[in-house]
Amino acid sequence: MASLFKKKEHPLFCYTRVKRISSNLFEDDNKRYIVSIRNHVELMEGLQAFCEHVGILCGQVTGIGAVSKATFRMYDPVTKQYVDKTFAEQMEITNITGNISEKDKEVYLHVHATCSRADYSCIGGHLLSARINGACELLVDSFGDTKAGRRYDDETGLNLYEF
Amino acid sequence: MASLFKKKEHPLFCYTRVKRISSNLFEDDNKRYIVSIRNHVELMEGLQAFCEHVGILCGQVTGIGAVSKATFRMYDPVTKQYVDKTFAEQMEITNITGNISEKDKEVYLHVHATCSRADYSCIGGHLLSARINGACELLVDSFGDTKAGRRYDDETGLNLYEF
Amino acid sequence: MASLFKKKEHPLFCYTRVKRISSNLFEDDNKRYIVSIRNHVELMEGLQAFCEHVGILCGQVTGIGAVSKATFRMYDPVTKQYVDKTFAEQMEITNITGNISEKDKEVYLHVHATCSRADYSCIGGHLLSARINGACELLVDSFGDTKAGRRYDDETGLNLYEF
Repeated sequence: MASLFKKKEHPLFCYTRVKRISSNLFEDDNKRYIVSIRNHVELMEGLQAFCEHVGILCGQVTGIGAVSKATFRMYDPVTKQYVDKTFAEQMEITNITGNISEKDKEVYLHVHATCSRADYSCIGGHLLSARINGACELLVDSFGDTKAGRRYDDETGLNLYEF
Repeated sequence: MASLFKKKEHPLFCYTRVKRISSNLFEDDNKRYIVSIRNHVELMEGLQAFCEHVGILCGQVTGIGAVSKATFRMYDPVTKQYVDKTFAEQMEITNITGNISEKDKEVYLHVHATCSRADYSCIGGHLLSARINGACELLVDSFGDTKAGRRYDDETGLNLYEF
Repeated sequence: MASLFKKKEHPLFCYTRVKRISSNLFEDDNKRYIVSIRNHVELMEGLQAFCEHVGILCGQVTGIGAVSKATFRMYDPVTKQYVDKTFAEQMEITNITGNISEKDKEVYLHVHATCSRADYSCIGGHLLSARINGACELLVDSFGDTKAGRRYDDETGLNLYEF
């Protein structure tokens, strides 16, 4: 069992699994991981790779970090389109909050982030991508085989949760 | 047991319960729910209704979303009053963080939110109300019969935690 | 057992432990605490004291609050230095997100915060210190004896996670 919790090597991240209950009688379906996405990696790519690596199709992510660039998508409900904007500057991620679900049998990430700029003012939104510059420390919860899918919704133009 | 985890229908929200430990020997007092508040619903009303629906008197909430309007309350420690302001514009909720406790045998919500505007700059505060426009995806943890009450505190003019 | 969950008194904080699984067969290594840092306490000092009090060397923290002052550190990757700035004004903490690890056998906190000002605009960053003025309500998760250390990294000048 010990090896399950040893340092894991991967080009995009390293992680450890949080130890849960001291029992050999059963297995907790919910796994919790402390994940450090490596420096200079694109955050969403690293997170997607992590979820695929350990096999998470339902879960959540929260964390902090620092980036040299971030691209946000703002949803425009009138046009039902996203408006993207890239901020190419050093920022702290004061918070990442997101969820992990499944669409077409693939990991589907929905992540929002708040970042602070050199003057400490915050920007944020739906996170499309971000280049880590410093560190990125996440807590990722896997909800085992709980099912949370996505279905395209005509009214909003969004992929809404489907349980 | 399967029916416990099936799609739940309600006019204000839909949700699924996160599956926990694979055992018939005991019941985990802590339940975890993935909650999608329906479009155009007032967020705090939807969250309150959800907590009453499943019976949560102690817990926490975290999540993301998009709104067409949000009203924040800023606490003024000098006057011990809240100053309310409504922002009637499309915004992403980059983070909702809140806790669920009990006051006078009712669900008592204490929720803060950070929102990003059309220029991606963030505003936020104590969340009084918000109109969902797009989606609102929450993770709600119930802490079973853990007790967390509220008592009015003269010094601050706030309802502080009472354990 | 009941006494474990009773109100705990400390000059810097009060707290309750979240009740978990109804079983006498085993002990969950992961403890969850609802923590209220007392008014006028320095937040990071209160959180550090709490972690030492209950014995957390690996975990995470999330929460909300209100402060009269906060000092943020912005990481400058060019100079590998932090630039500190203190905002001495009443603000809501719209979100605190942080992790707890171990360095030199001591509690090592890495905490970021987002705060909203009198005009509801947000500032934030790596949280160095903050003076609570109102309330500060945290959820602190202990990951038992899961190991997450810190090692100084020459490239970034940061204490990165070491699993």
